[in-house]
Amino acid sequence: MQIGPDEIERIALGAAFLGTGGGGDPFVGKLLALDAVDRYGPVELIQPEDVPDDGLVIPSAMMGAPTVMVEKIPNGSEGMHALNSLQSRLGKKAFAISPIEEGGINSQIPIAVAANLGLPLIDCDGMGRAFPELQMVTFTLYGIAAAPMVMADEKGNTLQMDTIDNLWTERIARSVTVQMGGSSLIAIYPMEGRRLKESCVRGSVTLAMQVGEIIAEARTHGSNPAEQVMERMKSVVIFKGKATDILRRTTAGFAKGEATFDGLDEFSGKSLKVRFQNENLVATMDGRPVAMVPDLISVLDLESGLPITTEGLRYGNRALVLGTPCDSKWRTPNGVKLVGPRYFGYDFDYVPVEELARSS
Amino acid sequence: MQIGPDEIERIALGAAFLGTGGGGDPFVGKLLALDAVDRYGPVELIQPEDVPDDGLVIPSAMMGAPTVMVEKIPNGSEGMHALNSLQSRLGKKAFAISPIEEGGINSQIPIAVAANLGLPLIDCDGMGRAFPELQMVTFTLYGIAAAPMVMADEKGNTLQMDTIDNLWTERIARSVTVQMGGSSLIAIYPMEGRRLKESCVRGSVTLAMQVGEIIAEARTHGSNPAEQVMERMKSVVIFKGKATDILRRTTAGFAKGEATFDGLDEFSGKSLKVRFQNENLVATMDGRPVAMVPDLISVLDLESGLPITTEGLRYGNRALVLGTPCDSKWRTPNGVKLVGPRYFGYDFDYVPVEELARSS
Repeated sequence: MQIGPDEIERIALGAAFLGTGGGGDPFVGKLLALDAVDRYGPVELIQPEDVPDDGLVIPSAMMGAPTVMVEKIPNGSEGMHALNSLQSRLGKKAFAISPIEEGGINSQIPIAVAANLGLPLIDCDGMGRAFPELQMVTFTLYGIAAAPMVMADEKGNTLQMDTIDNLWTERIARSVTVQMGGSSLIAIYPMEGRRLKESCVRGSVTLAMQVGEIIAEARTHGSNPAEQVMERMKSVVIFKGKATDILRRTTAGFAKGEATFDGLDEFSGKSLKVRFQNENLVATMDGRPVAMVPDLISVLDLESGLPITTEGLRYGNRALVLGTPCDSKWRTPNGVKLVGPRYFGYDFDYVPVEELARSS
Repeated sequence: MQIGPDEIERIALGAAFLGTGGGGDPFVGKLLALDAVDRYGPVELIQPEDVPDDGLVIPSAMMGAPTVMVEKIPNGSEGMHALNSLQSRLGKKAFAISPIEEGGINSQIPIAVAANLGLPLIDCDGMGRAFPELQMVTFTLYGIAAAPMVMADEKGNTLQMDTIDNLWTERIARSVTVQMGGSSLIAIYPMEGRRLKESCVRGSVTLAMQVGEIIAEARTHGSNPAEQVMERMKSVVIFKGKATDILRRTTAGFAKGEATFDGLDEFSGKSLKVRFQNENLVATMDGRPVAMVPDLISVLDLESGLPITTEGLRYGNRALVLGTPCDSKWRTPNGVKLVGPRYFGYDFDYVPVEELARSS
């Protein structure tokens, strides 16, 4: 299948949901992707199986705090620049581009880069959602190295990195991103098709597109897509409420904070706190966890059913908060260790969102 | 001439003076250099003229806060690692190694790297002293790019950088150095012999060795080398006093602070403040500047005449503070712009130290 302007619009809508409050506003990335397919034609979407075992796959992404990404717009060439640098370093051309994170702006960056290079895009990613740190990909679970990786900024600075592990890649790249003004374009986790097939989250691009289609369809009819999205994503309702307090600061390259909601309807009298680091991490109702990473926590506008990002959330917003089961690769012991609540400093074990919903 | 253990000892002594309070304790570097010449034999010291015009010169150095460098000792292979990475990036072998900064530890690192690689060391540097930031070299005045540059840490992380200018190299490399634990080894300012000849400060290694010889000789006789060092360096006495207050903090990759001295002898009743960022930057007597960058400000122990580093300075130290004219390349308008007092945030113009001494 081909990704043209219509598909880009739908992927952007769906990626806002998969962004779980973070991932960067897909709008900015959408403009880049639309411009790229306008110039270079649509991008072919292929399946992991279509990549030869020894074919080189390079994931492409933007790195930084979403609060910065919406204001510091890439000029469109940094992603290409990063990818080309990595190709010359490896002495090999990429067979295809992969998204690393199908949530938010990073659903779009790889489309723009693939269009520019005339390469296909692979229908997968390394998260099935958005996560704040570079090592937080299913690739890490399969021992795939983030390095060699390349970072580029819009000014023309580029950086090539060889690290001893993926945490060091994150650590160094994060500090460089801060210096670069809060965001950068990266080419990372170069790998053979063989490795991608075992380690990726499959069908992520198609999933974003399907969710986007539901939302677009509802928009056309002026209806609320929430119920259909929940059905497609197997989501559960965590809360209905009004945002009464939002703490948010951009620090050390991340947008961190928490949002408090006062209950409405059947949740009247209850209170929900959603803590985030770029993405929503943990939701607690009256102090009790009701959803947590790696499961997806999405805040939707109660009326329209459209996803609200953490940086878009305002006092008074009436919201439907959903919990959605993450990809099964994250529910392994190593997956939970890498991106579960304890990694983010919470003192409780991971419990799947659907179990928490049943027990409440 | 050959640089063996004796020469290393003397260079280290002289480099402590040229370090102007910073540059990192030469002692740590000396151990690396001694070990390297012990294993691989002495290093040949050549003159810039001995480098073919198209011969590749790579300066080698340690980067970081001196306060960290004395505790986080390099394992000796990072400098080699950085240099080898840069050589493969450039697809060319270095003809010789150059110091970038003949003050402090960086008088020694290039000796160790040169011995390891069996390459000659060039009798020059890019400062004729020590300075805290990467762009602060005479090479910058001649339009020579710091990039491509390579950084390596003792853990095995390496980083290759291409930047739009030398200030960006400093900015990004500084933040990476902080992440790497406060210090890193770098290979930077790769250039052809032709460019080195026009841009370097000549004779720096020999100068350090001569100053070191004076100090070593005085040590043997239990005499004070200050007067002879002053004669060799054309230094002037700025102050004699007792350290009464030292503020020092390691922040954003630098050791910053100020030291206050109460006058002794002919300076009795007067007070001197020396402000530093790794190196001593500005000395003011009762509020009036008496010496400033790019001139050298050295604090010597009043009894022994040995240089005291900013991290070695203690309450009660009785000191002789000297001002020494910098290399003439720094006294050009561009030189003063790059490393003069205004760059460091002081609101006064550069006046050569010998003029200030005459007018007081």
